[in-house]
Amino acid sequence: MDNMKQNITYSRIEAPALTVVQGFAAAGVHCGLKRSSRDLALLYSEKPASAAGVFTQNRVQAAPVQLCRARIGNPIRALVVNSGNANACTGAKGMENAQEMAALAAAALGIDPGEVLVCSTGVIGQQLPIDRIQAGIRDAAAALSSSYQSGQDAAAAILTTDTVTKQAAYRGSLPEGSFHLAGMAKGAGMICPNMATMLAFIATDVQIARPLLQQLFQEAVDRSFNLITIDGDTSTNDTALVLANGAAGVEITPGSPGLDLFAGLLNRVCRDLARQIVSDGEGITKVIELTVRGAADEAAARVLARTVLNSPLVKTAFYGEDANWGRIMAALGYAGVPFDPEQVDIFIGPVQVASRGGAVPFREEEAKAVLQQREIAVTVDLNAGSAAVTAWGTDLTHEYVTINSHYRS
Amino acid sequence: MDNMKQNITYSRIEAPALTVVQGFAAAGVHCGLKRSSRDLALLYSEKPASAAGVFTQNRVQAAPVQLCRARIGNPIRALVVNSGNANACTGAKGMENAQEMAALAAAALGIDPGEVLVCSTGVIGQQLPIDRIQAGIRDAAAALSSSYQSGQDAAAAILTTDTVTKQAAYRGSLPEGSFHLAGMAKGAGMICPNMATMLAFIATDVQIARPLLQQLFQEAVDRSFNLITIDGDTSTNDTALVLANGAAGVEITPGSPGLDLFAGLLNRVCRDLARQIVSDGEGITKVIELTVRGAADEAAARVLARTVLNSPLVKTAFYGEDANWGRIMAALGYAGVPFDPEQVDIFIGPVQVASRGGAVPFREEEAKAVLQQREIAVTVDLNAGSAAVTAWGTDLTHEYVTINSHYRS
Repeated sequence: MDNMKQNITYSRIEAPALTVVQGFAAAGVHCGLKRSSRDLALLYSEKPASAAGVFTQNRVQAAPVQLCRARIGNPIRALVVNSGNANACTGAKGMENAQEMAALAAAALGIDPGEVLVCSTGVIGQQLPIDRIQAGIRDAAAALSSSYQSGQDAAAAILTTDTVTKQAAYRGSLPEGSFHLAGMAKGAGMICPNMATMLAFIATDVQIARPLLQQLFQEAVDRSFNLITIDGDTSTNDTALVLANGAAGVEITPGSPGLDLFAGLLNRVCRDLARQIVSDGEGITKVIELTVRGAADEAAARVLARTVLNSPLVKTAFYGEDANWGRIMAALGYAGVPFDPEQVDIFIGPVQVASRGGAVPFREEEAKAVLQQREIAVTVDLNAGSAAVTAWGTDLTHEYVTINSHYRS
Repeated sequence: MDNMKQNITYSRIEAPALTVVQGFAAAGVHCGLKRSSRDLALLYSEKPASAAGVFTQNRVQAAPVQLCRARIGNPIRALVVNSGNANACTGAKGMENAQEMAALAAAALGIDPGEVLVCSTGVIGQQLPIDRIQAGIRDAAAALSSSYQSGQDAAAAILTTDTVTKQAAYRGSLPEGSFHLAGMAKGAGMICPNMATMLAFIATDVQIARPLLQQLFQEAVDRSFNLITIDGDTSTNDTALVLANGAAGVEITPGSPGLDLFAGLLNRVCRDLARQIVSDGEGITKVIELTVRGAADEAAARVLARTVLNSPLVKTAFYGEDANWGRIMAALGYAGVPFDPEQVDIFIGPVQVASRGGAVPFREEEAKAVLQQREIAVTVDLNAGSAAVTAWGTDLTHEYVTINSHYRS
């Protein structure tokens, strides 16, 4: 994607919002699930859109996740999202409420309930106050617009205690026309007690068949949202969705010249949002970008990277700005993936701290200078092949413990 | 074991030490690996002992672990243990040093180097100062005795920053005579930066063939040390060893009447030591005893229990004394084991907090009263079978972060 062919170019949109995508309107309102901030978002597509989704691997799946899984193959016209209540561990009543949310949105928009997807995030184990949801959907439907501000309102309404909205948008240009791709997300990890869930919603105005969209999206998610970790806790509600409504008049097919550009921009939007989520992780002081390279295959590199980034001992070492490569070696060792410990090189920034699995002399002050930064690049070279993966994690801090040991309320 | 047959009884020894076991002598000395406290332990058996061992699953295995694995089938006369340096990630030189430790102990004791096992715990990635080890082994060999105090000295010398020694001992009585079983251990988790390793050493004076001893020990370890977790980080040096020297004149065979008693006491010693390790976990304020029952099989129950006890969100909730059952449900869900979320009941102490996967009304103050205790029993009932497992974990505290973010020194 770095060497675009003539007439195939792209640009990053500096003021991103889902509403930059043609044929999409959005709204974000307050309906009383949270004390005062916006807590219900609505996204509407003028035309039926192809939808693709990637959902939590957790065996405990919230009602809206089950609803989305069942409907993802339909043409989709709308998405309704509430924050403040996860509608998880809520049984048959919870599923009724998720269906009711879709039905209320469908009625307000004059579309079919089967064309509506639903997501929820917030407290686990409490039933949704459906009367407030009903009022929220009514207000949101009335407020729908394709303005920049409406996009901001929707991005704000899906947050729990994230400190900032997460958005990204690109414009792609092909000889036959231009298209847009934009996304919004909310934080991973339990940013507040009982507040679960990573949510990511991406809209595009290309025309693309569902199977190809699902394939490209799964690849993009595997290289972005599936390579970030804040605390290793997989929520019951994690959902990433992409909607493609064809409003731009540009079609993406397996053989089309725009395929690489679209796939590349889909990757960029996902990675951009994923990094924004990590950067807003609970109580963090460091973002760790870990590259595992020289691996025999990408799947092994992926497991090793996630295991290192989930180790409490590695995470506290980064919090303490400690070039503690022994903890990285130990975490690699229990990842359950074969590799030769005596071939491993480890670098913190440009400073090599371990060679062939053992100590190597290095200047502590050089490593310290890297470790004092907020963003730290760490490289593990297995010297066993040519596969590589880059993943993102955080440190583990006193503030994380404070945030997550607060009583529910 | 609760219904002992006539003439088959046992008693707990109130002042436990390895040296209560006949035919074993011990010593613990200071040789300069740590600043001032004892850092080298020696255990000696008058007769060659059958040995069985269970070692770390970490792919990065310290040199002494590799040495023990290679020699565990030999008749064993001595065990030498140093704290303050893990001899891990130390390459060929590290293996030479582990062999040299065994050779030095063998020379001091007048036995064969193949009869000596070696363990190390402490900083990863630094070579052992073998001259200090040499002096320590010389002093320890001179100090060997079967006194109670020598047992205490050995138990102290294997610690890193554990705050107390961990010991347990039992006497078993059979019609043909009595025997002893005693153990000492050091803490799991990285109790100090870079200080790795759980170590457990058990001695007994029964006569038992190695294959049976290994089988019984593996079962006991699976129900004790393999069911505790403090931070989920598996060290490079974890080692549990049992030595049986036959000095009591009691033989345990697959058909002998004392088999159940011996196996039961081996389980008790292991569980007792395991609980002592958890109770001395780094920075903890709570010990959580989690029982997963109603499982289809024990293997599944084991994975579920460990996943819940390793969840940072579950651990911080207990630190905050929060009856946050939604986090327990979420952790069960990502354990990777099949179960039906809608059948799960959860109890905190006697208080049911979730029923069939959903909320159930309970009195917060009753749950709070349980959560304010230092030891908290939690029960997860899967309502799917008759298998059950009990595992032990801790909360995650500010003090844990403080301890583990300190700079190496």
